Parts: sequence; C-alpha cells; structure tokens
Amino acid sequence: MTAGPNFDKHELIPVIAQDEASGDVLMLAYMNRDAYAETLRTGRVCYYSRSRQKLWRKGEESGNVQELKSLYFDCDADTLLVKVNQIGGAACHEGYRSCFFREVDPQSEEVRVVGERVFDPAEVYKKK
Amino acid sequence: MTAGPNFDKHELIPVIAQDEASGDVLMLAYMNRDAYAETLRTGRVCYYSRSRQKLWRKGEESGNVQELKSLYFDCDADTLLVKVNQIGGAACHEGYRSCFFREVDPQSEEVRVVGERVFDPAEVYKKK
Repeated sequence: MTAGPNFDKHELIPVIAQDEASGDVLMLAYMNRDAYAETLRTGRVCYYSRSRQKLWRKGEESGNVQELKSLYFDCDADTLLVKVNQIGGAACHEGYRSCFFREVDPQSEEVRVVGERVFDPAEVYKKK
Repeated sequence: MTAGPNFDKHELIPVIAQDEASGDVLMLAYMNRDAYAETLRTGRVCYYSRSRQKLWRKGEESGNVQELKSLYFDCDADTLLVKVNQIGGAACHEGYRSCFFREVDPQSEEVRVVGERVFDPAEVYKKK
C-alpha cells in the first residue's frame, strides 16, 4: 500500500508537529506536495509558508531544524502528523518550546503563559 | 489578560485534540466562535463540521465524547490545542484510538496501519 496524503483535494494540508521524546505538541503549519516530498527526501521537516508563499525549511534562520522521526496521516488523508526531534529545544519563533504556550481557563477565559522560554527571539533573529 | 484565539482573521480555526493521559494526538478538526464558546461553557469539545456546515458535538452519535481537560492557543492565535479525556477510547470514526493510524515510511513511502482498532464502525454507526 503506497497511497499517502491527498494533495488533490487541498493544495495545502495542515501538519501537526509533535516532539517525539516528550510528546508535546509543538506547532501547526502547512505542507504542499513539494514540501512533503522534500521532508521525506531530506529527513528534515519542510513546510509551506502561507504568508511568504514559498517553501519554509523550518530552522533555516534560527538553526532550530526539526529532524523527522516518523510521519502519519489521518483517516481523511488531509492532515499530517510528524514526530520530530526539535533541535535547539524550541519550535516557536517567540522562543518557547511549543507554540501553544498560552492556556485559557474555561470558566474565566483568563489567559496565562504556561510555556518555558528557551531562547530570546531578539538574539536569534538578529536584524541583518 | 483575557485575549484568546482570534476568530476575526479566520472564521474557522484548526483544533488539535490530544489525549491528556497518553499524549497521543487524536485528531484535527475546526471550531468557529460558537463551537469554541460551547466547548468552554459545557466542558465537552464541540467542533464545526466543514462538510455538514454546522456545529458538531463530537460523540453525539457514537457516544465517544471528548471531555475538555485544558485548552491552549498558539503564538499566532489561530490554532487551538485541546487536551481531552476521550470517552470510549477512540476518537476516529473508523474505530481507531487516533485518526493518525497510518504511518508512511520516508524512504519507500510504504503505508502501514499502526493504530489499534477499538470499535467496529459498522456496529457503532448503525443504519437507522
């Protein structure tokens, strides 16, 4: 069986990145067919940036690349799950391990920061 | 701080559901503002079905509801992560614990089923 995710229905497919070691959900991004092929070929996760409209080799600027450990697709073949080794320990451009560093209290709707900041974005993304 | 996910930019926001106990990523679905409000109010996860174009109270047919344990949103405020207690043990309508029950081998692109089937869909979704 070789049928995989279906890029015919949607050109862009959402991709959930999960830290293989901790199980933490790190981020959600998108892949097109090219990003998917490059990810499989190189073993490094490559997304498609919707804002920049081009391939986004995660970590190309910060060095915080994601090594692909395993890859899954869902029952509708329109969502991917990648388990990764997150180099540098932080997936979020704001310096947190996970992009999901803010929790909402269901009763009060109060928001609190629950994530741990691993790096200072101002240091990593220096103005050229 | 009470600012939460931003439904102004996108009417529908992707939602990652993760099993709180096992850490398994169960599924990806969508919420609109109403689904989000109902989820917070009831403590049961309510999505918005894109195909049926209406609120989708997860488990309303199968009984496999998702009890909300905690809720997070990402750095761009346009993706949610819900940690849940998955009643019945299976999130997928095909009877698997997780919708991500198929793994792709990066080298060969061979697909294999890795998930465990918890229920028989033919039994659960009986024709009326």
